[in-house]
Amino acid sequence: MTDNVSSPTPLTLLGTGDMGTALARAWLAAGHPVTVWNRTPARAEPLAAEGAVVAASAAEAVAAGRLVIACLLDDASVGETLADAELSGRDLVNLTTGTPGEGRSRAAWAEARGARFLDAGIMAVPPMIGDPASGAYVFYSGSAELFEEHQTTLAVPAATRYVGTDPGFAALHDVALLSGMYGMFAGITHAFALLRGEDIAPKEFAPLLVSWLNAMAPAALETADKLVSGDYAKDVVSNLAMQVAGSATLLRTAGEQGVSTELLTPFLRLMERRLAAGHGDEDTTGLVGMLTAATG
Amino acid sequence: MTDNVSSPTPLTLLGTGDMGTALARAWLAAGHPVTVWNRTPARAEPLAAEGAVVAASAAEAVAAGRLVIACLLDDASVGETLADAELSGRDLVNLTTGTPGEGRSRAAWAEARGARFLDAGIMAVPPMIGDPASGAYVFYSGSAELFEEHQTTLAVPAATRYVGTDPGFAALHDVALLSGMYGMFAGITHAFALLRGEDIAPKEFAPLLVSWLNAMAPAALETADKLVSGDYAKDVVSNLAMQVAGSATLLRTAGEQGVSTELLTPFLRLMERRLAAGHGDEDTTGLVGMLTAATG
Repeated sequence: MTDNVSSPTPLTLLGTGDMGTALARAWLAAGHPVTVWNRTPARAEPLAAEGAVVAASAAEAVAAGRLVIACLLDDASVGETLADAELSGRDLVNLTTGTPGEGRSRAAWAEARGARFLDAGIMAVPPMIGDPASGAYVFYSGSAELFEEHQTTLAVPAATRYVGTDPGFAALHDVALLSGMYGMFAGITHAFALLRGEDIAPKEFAPLLVSWLNAMAPAALETADKLVSGDYAKDVVSNLAMQVAGSATLLRTAGEQGVSTELLTPFLRLMERRLAAGHGDEDTTGLVGMLTAATG
Repeated sequence: MTDNVSSPTPLTLLGTGDMGTALARAWLAAGHPVTVWNRTPARAEPLAAEGAVVAASAAEAVAAGRLVIACLLDDASVGETLADAELSGRDLVNLTTGTPGEGRSRAAWAEARGARFLDAGIMAVPPMIGDPASGAYVFYSGSAELFEEHQTTLAVPAATRYVGTDPGFAALHDVALLSGMYGMFAGITHAFALLRGEDIAPKEFAPLLVSWLNAMAPAALETADKLVSGDYAKDVVSNLAMQVAGSATLLRTAGEQGVSTELLTPFLRLMERRLAAGHGDEDTTGLVGMLTAATG
């Protein structure tokens, strides 16, 4: 059974915060019958005016149809909200932010109640939802059957990317990308701090920084290659010995400019430790294993 | 006076390490008469076979022509190498890695000796030099007259980008971009560490990470806009209050996966401090000022 394109699949959406509301609007705009529920009913009312049916309880909303989407505050809210709902035979898609472990335990919980389960990680902010040009997409993991059956419906608010049957993988991909982004944001913050008080226009500098970061981001592809091959010294142009030597200039420059190095030193220290352990001919790939408890 | 394209400008290059050698080869290939000197003469010999004149001393190399390029170990090496050279009337271009302060004091030192001075920051590794498709470029700052006169020659090994008369600005731009990159590398390292031991192929994950980082890097443009306007809360979609709440999921995920959060916590703590100071409606722009001593 697949989605019937000529008659959009009805669905239930639990949680009409900013993200839930954006999702609901995208499905309503595409002609899907949408039943919504929100803990604070007033936040669901604007959607009623746009054609959604507002259920009086979460249990009633779940009873309205097979496909149930949860977009709630956190994983605990999912459990509380669905405590009295009849989930047997339902397809539960969890768009609530959580950890991989929460995705896995919530999957077991849902399956024990007779539901198929798909966890998700939304790589977007609400204004990007329903706009195919925004680049927004959602990671999904868990029941492949559920995903295949409802893929067309799920693709309405944002592009879909299924990453495996392990229900923890959607959150893991989500958090890994966000973690990478926060590292980049830390670097951007330090870069702008270096320029403070100097006669350098932030708007002239910023495009250079964006181009440079875009040019350097593919280093992640080399890291992946090396993690797979296990040979961290192959074809390394700028090795750890050179990078640690060069990092002294970064630290001295921060000192001259009166900028705290707190955002950069943890990574530089990790490079120094790896160098001291005799890996000066490698690139930074070996630092990955230093962060994990098993090998740290 | 400008470079005569039909008769390439002769130049002297001090320092034939990996970068100096790559630069010399690019100029030789373009037909420039090149005089080289290196502290360890054997490292200059391969260039002699390619047409360079190897000088017996740095002073002799400097005496060979007006345009003198230094690509040495560090700023102190520049002073030592040129101690006995006659710099009056020379155009000294310093491609040696250093801090903004070193660029400024070296400029004053060179000008006191009668030379025009240009400092530089090379945004490339040696294999990128002489390859217009590599994206390599060099920041220059200092004497605008020197830069204009020799721009054509300087553009032979890599594209040029002049960033101002302040001789510290080339190094400052260089270090700011590298600092941004190390932040991004820290994020990439943390991201891969989260996946260790999971059945997720690094080579499938890496392109997702690169695309995501490239999509998020333009946040630096918004940071620049806000630094200029001073309004850090304008048009903020994901504000600090939401980001700090969301970062709890990042930290708990790292805990589940056995990954140290040392690379991310300094930035997350900075966000928390800014939020606690009453700026929950802003984006991360306000963190820039927290890193500088004057406002920290």
